Amino acid sequence: MHRFDIGLAEELKIVEKYLQEFLGAEGSVSQIRDILQDIALSGGKRLRPQLLLLAAQFGPQYEEKKERLCCLAALVEMVHAASLVHDDIVDDSPTRRGRSSIQSKYGKDRAVYAGDLLLSRIVKQLFKERFYRVGELFGRAVEEMCLGELGQMECLFDADVEVERYLRNVDGKTAALCRLACSAGALESGASQETAAHLVAFGENFGRLFQIHDDLLDYVSDACSEGKPVMMDFKSGILTLPVLYALKTEAAGEGIRSLLEKARQGIFTEDDSGELGRLVRDSGGIAEARRDLERYAEAAFEALDQLPPCRAREILAALAARLSRD
Amino acid sequence: MHRFDIGLAEELKIVEKYLQEFLGAEGSVSQIRDILQDIALSGGKRLRPQLLLLAAQFGPQYEEKKERLCCLAALVEMVHAASLVHDDIVDDSPTRRGRSSIQSKYGKDRAVYAGDLLLSRIVKQLFKERFYRVGELFGRAVEEMCLGELGQMECLFDADVEVERYLRNVDGKTAALCRLACSAGALESGASQETAAHLVAFGENFGRLFQIHDDLLDYVSDACSEGKPVMMDFKSGILTLPVLYALKTEAAGEGIRSLLEKARQGIFTEDDSGELGRLVRDSGGIAEARRDLERYAEAAFEALDQLPPCRAREILAALAARLSRD
Repeated sequence: MHRFDIGLAEELKIVEKYLQEFLGAEGSVSQIRDILQDIALSGGKRLRPQLLLLAAQFGPQYEEKKERLCCLAALVEMVHAASLVHDDIVDDSPTRRGRSSIQSKYGKDRAVYAGDLLLSRIVKQLFKERFYRVGELFGRAVEEMCLGELGQMECLFDADVEVERYLRNVDGKTAALCRLACSAGALESGASQETAAHLVAFGENFGRLFQIHDDLLDYVSDACSEGKPVMMDFKSGILTLPVLYALKTEAAGEGIRSLLEKARQGIFTEDDSGELGRLVRDSGGIAEARRDLERYAEAAFEALDQLPPCRAREILAALAARLSRD
Repeated sequence: MHRFDIGLAEELKIVEKYLQEFLGAEGSVSQIRDILQDIALSGGKRLRPQLLLLAAQFGPQYEEKKERLCCLAALVEMVHAASLVHDDIVDDSPTRRGRSSIQSKYGKDRAVYAGDLLLSRIVKQLFKERFYRVGELFGRAVEEMCLGELGQMECLFDADVEVERYLRNVDGKTAALCRLACSAGALESGASQETAAHLVAFGENFGRLFQIHDDLLDYVSDACSEGKPVMMDFKSGILTLPVLYALKTEAAGEGIRSLLEKARQGIFTEDDSGELGRLVRDSGGIAEARRDLERYAEAAFEALDQLPPCRAREILAALAARLSRD
């Protein structure tokens, strides 16, 4: 995935060691062990642990606290894993990262408790390892994630949702965890308040960037003929940024509303996907969402500019740049 | 509900104040506010906060830390509330405490995040109020609750489940939270290690008592003609203690297995409920479960006997006695 070396090979190995430990199931009955093992094997890019470890490099105690920072990075990844298990219940997702999702393989009921089990282990570890300074931040981040998801549900199939409301939901469902990674890394490595504030600003804008980049994929990959557009979000009533901008236009507003009605009725076809893509593109929805993408990228770079130049800063900038390009 | 004065009127008012605070939704959009309000209004007997406050009276700092103990008691009740929200998803319960359950009123998807939201607020408060000594116990208790629920799911419709396995599930799904209430109260009020150990032993046995008492209700209320037996557990494949004992007998084993097959196929009738009740009763399943009930009551009383005599001890004994009688 990465086209550049982020220089965290040693640390990420330690992160994996902790993840294996936190997802262990000694003494547990067979199925619980299987569920935890499936979660452990589902992998992922470990983006949030990387953010945490890179942010931590701006503090004076990175080297001496490396082991502890890797443990904390694994706990941030555990929050991500728990949220995916519960998100897949809600989205009814059959797969996750190319494997069967926990909810499809073991049922929604087990997935509820499996996600809770991960959350309980995070809490246990935070106290056990005395992560007292960052513990409250974990609680806040999960709270914001829940509020973002619940906020998004309130907006389902609502063509009149304001962009501002959409962004508030994104701040919860995606940006909160990126912000947590950056602030926890900075705090734990002893970075100054000022440095931590810049890293938090970076994390927040990086999270928004991440979400809008993801939103655009449905429309951009269509344009590039990289494959059929999937439009899963639209089908389930989630109006992403390019769609929201297109909805405000005279050219596409009416058309998208009728397509949304078809999605609500569950009769949204592949042809409709193509039509939606055209409407969003031709009305300038993609272009406008891209402008926001660039704006957040700009804000992320500005936050980095306040930090001392170093290898970690270059890598964070490269991670953000990659999201602002595609 | 209580037939005696537990002398906690002032404290329980403070607990309610904290619950209102933790379930607040300032700045939230309308539906999230409604969900939290519904959870706040759903009430309950506040048994776990009572356990915590009674256990805390064995420590030297009860009076000076009363406010703080009430906050902690509210957090234990929040764990209970979160578990009910998620349990209702799994059990598909239409109601909870005489009101619509969150999952039936707002849908399972919202209930997933609503439960998570409660959990996140518990974590936030534990760190914010610096409950460092008891925080890990909270994490452990929720972990055990999840393992108990997942363990129970593995046993669904399995007529060969051992009583020991059933009890391990009960220790997680019911006893863990009663134990947490007692240990958190003891620790936070500065009780000695020895005193805390006796209170933990009480809490654990009280929890088992509580569950077996609940298990027996289906069969006892039938016997007393207090109303139609509901047998919800059996219908959903959960084999409770009286059924497990009856299953081991020659007289009832076969019959219960056929009824279980009907339950699995979803064709379990009201007549079948009556038949199940008779089989469990006549084979001695109820009597044997009652012997366990008495054994755990005895263990709970023995734990109390190690503690100095006081009003709190009397009340804890009375709470346990009530469960061992009916």
